[in-house]
Amino acid sequence: MITQEETLALARETHAGHPELGLVLRLIANTGVRTRHLVQPLEDTLAHPGFEVRNRRYEAEAKERVPAVVRGALAHAELEPAEIDLIVYVSCTGFMMPSLTAWLINTMGFRADTRQLPIAQLGCAAGGAAVNRAHDFCTAYPTANVLIVSCEFCSLLYQPTDLGVGSLLSNGLFGDALSAAVVRGTGGTGMRLERNGSHLVPDTEEWISYAVRETGFHFLLDKRVPGTMRMLAPALRELASGHGWEVGALDFLIVHAGGPRILDDLCHYLELDEHLFRFSRATLTERGNIASSVVFDALDRFFAAGGAAQGASGLIAGFGPGITAEMALGRWTATDTATGTAADALPRQRTAAFPGLGAREHRG
Amino acid sequence: MITQEETLALARETHAGHPELGLVLRLIANTGVRTRHLVQPLEDTLAHPGFEVRNRRYEAEAKERVPAVVRGALAHAELEPAEIDLIVYVSCTGFMMPSLTAWLINTMGFRADTRQLPIAQLGCAAGGAAVNRAHDFCTAYPTANVLIVSCEFCSLLYQPTDLGVGSLLSNGLFGDALSAAVVRGTGGTGMRLERNGSHLVPDTEEWISYAVRETGFHFLLDKRVPGTMRMLAPALRELASGHGWEVGALDFLIVHAGGPRILDDLCHYLELDEHLFRFSRATLTERGNIASSVVFDALDRFFAAGGAAQGASGLIAGFGPGITAEMALGRWTATDTATGTAADALPRQRTAAFPGLGAREHRG
Repeated sequence: MITQEETLALARETHAGHPELGLVLRLIANTGVRTRHLVQPLEDTLAHPGFEVRNRRYEAEAKERVPAVVRGALAHAELEPAEIDLIVYVSCTGFMMPSLTAWLINTMGFRADTRQLPIAQLGCAAGGAAVNRAHDFCTAYPTANVLIVSCEFCSLLYQPTDLGVGSLLSNGLFGDALSAAVVRGTGGTGMRLERNGSHLVPDTEEWISYAVRETGFHFLLDKRVPGTMRMLAPALRELASGHGWEVGALDFLIVHAGGPRILDDLCHYLELDEHLFRFSRATLTERGNIASSVVFDALDRFFAAGGAAQGASGLIAGFGPGITAEMALGRWTATDTATGTAADALPRQRTAAFPGLGAREHRG
Repeated sequence: MITQEETLALARETHAGHPELGLVLRLIANTGVRTRHLVQPLEDTLAHPGFEVRNRRYEAEAKERVPAVVRGALAHAELEPAEIDLIVYVSCTGFMMPSLTAWLINTMGFRADTRQLPIAQLGCAAGGAAVNRAHDFCTAYPTANVLIVSCEFCSLLYQPTDLGVGSLLSNGLFGDALSAAVVRGTGGTGMRLERNGSHLVPDTEEWISYAVRETGFHFLLDKRVPGTMRMLAPALRELASGHGWEVGALDFLIVHAGGPRILDDLCHYLELDEHLFRFSRATLTERGNIASSVVFDALDRFFAAGGAAQGASGLIAGFGPGITAEMALGRWTATDTATGTAADALPRQRTAAFPGLGAREHRG
């Protein structure tokens, strides 16, 4: 684990003499990120042993850590591996082919006919996209169950030679985490997914991107990115109104907290109380921007806080490169698992259970 | 374009003195690949200008070539860009974030709420996976339309320092191609998708894989791969029988022709006439293994040959890393577009139109 004080001291030391050091320190301080978790010791994080060694580290750490969070998610969802029909694996911080889905099927008892959907190119939006593609799948196959795995070791993308303000800010903002969630076709406790949507902000492809180089993926963050909620807030509002809902009347919101201004601006543009974003805010404060895992970590906090009242309405939204928002609407639902009546009563509805998120199992 | 004679001459010259040159030449000759297309001139293909330059070339070539094949596919499907609800982009030979989906939406008139599903980690199986995820999506949303784009510049993965037999064989086997296809929720002419499935052969993750290095992706091909149809043929048979069909009674088969033995072995294990594989065989002969594009190129040949009789049963199958098979069953269907009655009569069915495949528009 690394604290903000340590991050700031490190930036002062590493970038002494950088012409914009003052700005960078202010930006990092303003993130509100108090602590972050790193997958490897700080001295290893700061070294760049080459793309190959880093990617091998990604694979080794993923294989060591993913099974536990998957087991946790399955246990919370009360499912066995053999009951999973699709594994959606989202990760933009390492590249494997075949993806980890094949290894998971081979080592954890999933069926040989489990569908594999690895997504590497949706960045921070992939958390929302994973929920939405799982929702689509369960809509197509109402008794199916989907396992989502998000594995983001952002610190493995640290590039010591990238000295732009956006890069130095990113170095102080991103953290490592992994998480797993289950979307059940029927039954379970969680957010029953009702509608999903995607929105691309026109002509912003370059704002969040990777430059692919011999040294690996170089994360490029345009300074206009923090202001994108002005453009995405209407998409959230529109998705809600298309569902007959008022975004201002939602009971809970779980959004990608890429930085503090995302949450502040959503409060502003959607006229929402900041208390609604407390789970996403806590994820940002305690873990930093953990890419596609943010929404699952925030959901985990929501679950841990007891969820919401039966039928409470809510929204999940991931934001990432494109710039893309992946949004989901649904209602909090608890099933009486002894009778399974909710499942029977709602044969055309999805129930999403988002339990056992492994981010918390991540060592500090 | 490069012929097999040129490939063999090049291998003799480049690898004179290689202890297994004789074996390599025999293997290449046995592929039956007569011609392949390359995205750049041979001298550029043989140079390795670095991962960054190569990946930039990938992006530039994709942006230059993809729009025409997309327009062709949409025209054949009689759809406008604004009628597409999901873009599935499959490509394992270059890496972009955001993926090309964002650029396509921005430049070709797709709606801002078009879903984006980029898949980079399913290799040659991704053609089948794209069809199957499109099928799932149209099952969930029966009036939706899905655009599939496959963009595979395999020659950009040439690694001059990889001298193993598997690598040298791959250098003589893989070709470049791109293709697009549309899966319509209703209407259109093509294969009406009825069922799909996936199968992972246990403990074969290492057989087809990428080693990720400073020099980019290094394709690793185990010598056991050509024999995998023994393990996958039962999965094809089982999918068919689960649908009440006999695999031996299928009217058409469109499969990933990764190499000649795949087709020979499928004939053998499934007791099928080799004539059934003529479209896949022609793709292999005229283009080589073009990764996820094989199934679309073979489908294009099937369309060009007039398709099949109304109601004829068939199978599409992609094979790739995992080792994974992605399989689809369906029936050839022509809609009377003047009345749209087929769509109305089959509200729960999918119609897949696979037209305008751009592989043929690829310059030689």
